[in-house]
Formats: sequence, structure tokens, C-alpha cells
Amino acid sequence: MQHLVAELLNGKRRSVAKLISMIENDHPDKRQLLTEIYAHTGRAYVIGITGAPGSGKSSLVDNLLYKIRSENLTVGVIAVDPTSPFTGGAILGDRIRMQDHALDPGIFVRSMGTRGSLGGLSRSTREAIHVLDAFGKDLVIVETVGVGQSEVDIVKTADTTLVVLTPAGGDGVQTIKAGIMEIADVFALNKSDLPNADRAAAEIKIMLDMNKEDCWKPPIVQTVSIKNENIDQLWEALKKHRHYMEGSGRLLEARRKRVARELTEQVEYLVKNRIWEQVKEKIDLETLINAITLREKDPYSASLELLDKTHVTE
Amino acid sequence: MQHLVAELLNGKRRSVAKLISMIENDHPDKRQLLTEIYAHTGRAYVIGITGAPGSGKSSLVDNLLYKIRSENLTVGVIAVDPTSPFTGGAILGDRIRMQDHALDPGIFVRSMGTRGSLGGLSRSTREAIHVLDAFGKDLVIVETVGVGQSEVDIVKTADTTLVVLTPAGGDGVQTIKAGIMEIADVFALNKSDLPNADRAAAEIKIMLDMNKEDCWKPPIVQTVSIKNENIDQLWEALKKHRHYMEGSGRLLEARRKRVARELTEQVEYLVKNRIWEQVKEKIDLETLINAITLREKDPYSASLELLDKTHVTE
Repeated sequence: MQHLVAELLNGKRRSVAKLISMIENDHPDKRQLLTEIYAHTGRAYVIGITGAPGSGKSSLVDNLLYKIRSENLTVGVIAVDPTSPFTGGAILGDRIRMQDHALDPGIFVRSMGTRGSLGGLSRSTREAIHVLDAFGKDLVIVETVGVGQSEVDIVKTADTTLVVLTPAGGDGVQTIKAGIMEIADVFALNKSDLPNADRAAAEIKIMLDMNKEDCWKPPIVQTVSIKNENIDQLWEALKKHRHYMEGSGRLLEARRKRVARELTEQVEYLVKNRIWEQVKEKIDLETLINAITLREKDPYSASLELLDKTHVTE
Repeated sequence: MQHLVAELLNGKRRSVAKLISMIENDHPDKRQLLTEIYAHTGRAYVIGITGAPGSGKSSLVDNLLYKIRSENLTVGVIAVDPTSPFTGGAILGDRIRMQDHALDPGIFVRSMGTRGSLGGLSRSTREAIHVLDAFGKDLVIVETVGVGQSEVDIVKTADTTLVVLTPAGGDGVQTIKAGIMEIADVFALNKSDLPNADRAAAEIKIMLDMNKEDCWKPPIVQTVSIKNENIDQLWEALKKHRHYMEGSGRLLEARRKRVARELTEQVEYLVKNRIWEQVKEKIDLETLINAITLREKDPYSASLELLDKTHVTE
């Protein structure tokens, strides 16, 4: 499997697809491969994009890809759908649209769904970013469907986060939940040709003025993705945030936090596996679960007793 | 704190609010209290309700509360918003509406937001259900905003799951993701006074016919919550599923699975805490994180080395 890493570093597209599949399927060689890949990462700039379904997020990504390519930057796109258990599934229409770029060797697009737990998906996303980073992409775009907590977690892997809102149907107010306000570095108010767009933009601005006491004020760019309107401004806003992050030293700080999160994830993942191996060897879980179901025992003291029989001492 | 459990079992409302707050805040006495409470649980029937924002989910719950109370059943409602970091925050309008029932002693309503991780929220929800169950509520309704994976995880705590869809704007197809199809026991197609409602119902039916090879065929009830239309049918469908679950022995099976999940959560929660206590004592995490950020080390081998220094052996 070592040749896969060599192929990746030599720019072979096939190896990227192969490696991301191995990550998704928790292939036994995955850890070893990621260990080798990691030393070649840290160069790509990661942009996270999130927004409610129907906000036109994917066509914005599409528009941005043209801008990015016009500056001769290469880009990897990871489209994450936390509600889909299928890889490569995601949203059919979006993926078809993205195929405009399929023949451009400077773009690599990959969809990821949840195969197991959610924690698993943010871990896989992080690992897939490492693959695209080591592959040499200048930028990695992580696009997630929706604005739930799971999407917030996934977007935390990004250096710059773009939140896409629309003025439609009071949507503005409804989707700007606290979690979203905190993660947004740039807002795109898409579908800004709708009548109440200016009011929605003003509303967002008021919320931002209330909430953020930061050196960076997230700009609100009023885009119309299907008409390609204000995409230049959006791209400039994203670049401006990047310069701010790099210039202020915040980028390094943010990346340290991500490393801490990744290390935590890895440790907890390893520990969990080891614990269950030990537990399965020593304890008749079926009988224990039955006893708890019948209220003869409770899960709180049972879990303590269970741990006493493993090597995880206090 | 022991008196709190006594108060709970004696039907004191104040103790319910207090206990759920302690659960949310991870109070040090929480485990002990839950251990005592657990023996008094297992009687309440749990109904999970999920659907996209704007689907009219909350007014359906509202309508159902009148039905439930007309049968002299008592009910606890936990409204979970995974995107909100605030307790009691949730969606303002919904909560205000729910206050119609605030003076009815047979109803207890509580909002929960995410205070920490998502895993934490599904754990807190499960624990809050135990509290309401021991409090003596016949039914517990868990309502979650949205249809993401996080909501799916939360709804897995339910005996019967109602998924609320609407015919509006191709929404039907968009929100019926694989995860949702699997968890739905009953569908409410709300806003069924919209012109394309019948077509949407037919579409859902086709998807169900393709996907489910089960003894239980999830019924699709076309409701109009704001006009109180077909709420009787919806309530009957929910009761019918309950009878099916109880009669077929599936309820016990489902509850065993939930116990297994809760036990797993508890064990992993304890293990994580113990590990980080040990790690913090023995390892200079800051230096390690810096080294990984600078690519001098990688998180994969670092996490293995880190575990070697704890008591979690292989």
C-alpha cells in the first residue's frame, strides 16, 4: 500500500480516490498511510461552506471554482452530506452540476456521506483534507449540507468559513442560530435579487453588531449565484479573510486548535476500540443488557463495574 | 440531593426542572441521582418527532397534546434544538405557543439545547427522558428541530418515531434522506391543503414501497396542523404503531438496543474522562500539539505514544 502515498505525492488522481475510500471504509492500513501523508500537509488553505438546503450553496461553490481556476489555483472539493449514509451519493443535482469541472485536472471533487457515527464523519473529512493537501491542492473546499451542529463540527476543520443564507421566507432569522454566527467569517446572502434581500442583509448586520466583539467583522456579500452576480466580491471577501488570518497570526492559532482536536479524536478513537476489545473478552454483555432492560441493574453503576474489569484504572 | 429523587417520585414539578438542569450542566451528583432514578423508569412510552424547520412540527405537537390530554394521559415534552447552545432557548415562537399548555399539570414542557458536544446532547436527552419517566408521565414526546444526523441520533431514543414532511417546494423529495426513511414509523404530511399534497404523498409511498421490507408499513397521514385537520387519524396511527410494537415483541427488542446504546455511551464517557485525567498529569500536551502543528510529529503516531503512557493497555 506504500505505493499509494508515492502516487499521491506524484499527483496521480486515482490514488486520491483510493485513499479517501480507504479512509471512509476504515481500512486497516489507514493509520499507517495517514502517518506517512501527514508530513506532506499544512500547505493547503481550507475553506468551509455551509448553508441550508436550497440556499444555492452548491452553485455558489460552482461559481467560486471558476474564479479560483482563473487565478491558476488548484482546488479539491469535499461535499459532505451528514444525512446520507452513502458515499458519492449526496445530492444528485448538485453532483451532476459539479461535473462541469470534472474534466479540469486542477479540480478534484469528492462526496462523502456518513458511514457510521457523526464523529466518524468529521474525522473522515479531516483525513480527506490531509489527502488533498498532500496531493498538492492550493485550496480545499469543504461544503456541507445544512446548518445543524454536525455541519458546524465539520466546518470547524476550515481556515475560513463561508455561511450561505437567503432572504427567502424569514429564513434569514431562522437559520442564523448562535452556532452559525460564531463560525461565520464571511456571509453570502444568496438569491439577493429577491425583494426583501436588503432588509435581510440589514438584519444579519444588526445581529453581527450585537454578537461579535472581534477585530474581524464578517462581511455580508449579496450574491445571485444563478446570475453569477457579486461572485468577484465574494471571492475577494474570502481572500481578505485569509490575509487577515495569515497576517494576524490567527491562522497558526486556529490550526493549533485543529491539531488539538484531531489528537483528541485519535486518542479517544483508539481508547474506545481497546476498551470494547477487552470488554467483549471478559464480560457477557447480553446478560448485562438484559438485566438493565429489566431494571435489575442501571447503566450508570453497570458501566463503572464494567470498567473495573478492564485495564482502564482510575 | 437525595431529597430531589424523593420529590420527583412524589410528583413535585420543581424537582423535574432541577434534575434536568443538573443533567445539562453535568452536575457532579448527576450519576448518583440517575442511578437512583433508573429503577423507577421503563413505564413511559416515548414518541420522537422530527421534521425540517417550518414543517409545522411544533403545532402538530400542540394538536397532539390536546388529543393526549383528552384521553387523560399525562405527557412530558422535550424540545431539542441541536443548533442552539442555550437551554430553554430553542425557537421562540414555538415555545410561546407551547405555553397554552403551561398551566395544565398533566403536561411538562422543557427545551434543551446543545451545551457541549452533540454526543452530549443525545445523552442528556436520554437522561431527561428517564427523569420524566420516573416522574410518572405516561408519554414522553421528544421533538427535534431538523432532519440531520444529529436529530436522527436523538430520535433513536424513541419507541415510535413520527417524521413530519411538507409538500412545499419539492421539499418532500429533498428531506426524505435515507436516514429518515429508516427511522420513520409514521409520516405526517403536514400542510396537506397545499395543491401538490397528494402527489407528494404518492411519492413518499413509492419510496416506502421500495425501501421497507418490514411487517410494519409506515402510514402517511395528511395533516393540516393549523386547521387541526386529521389530527385524530395521526394520533390513531401513532397508537396503532405502539400496539404493533407491544404486540409483536418489538418494543422489548428496541428497548434492549437502547439500553445497549446507553451503556456504550456511559462506558465511553467514563473512559474518556479517565484518559484525559491521566494524560494531563503525565504529558505536556502543549508541546506535543505544537510539534504536530509544525509537522515534526503526526497525530496518528502521537496518539499511540500518548496512550502507551496511560493505563489503557492493549
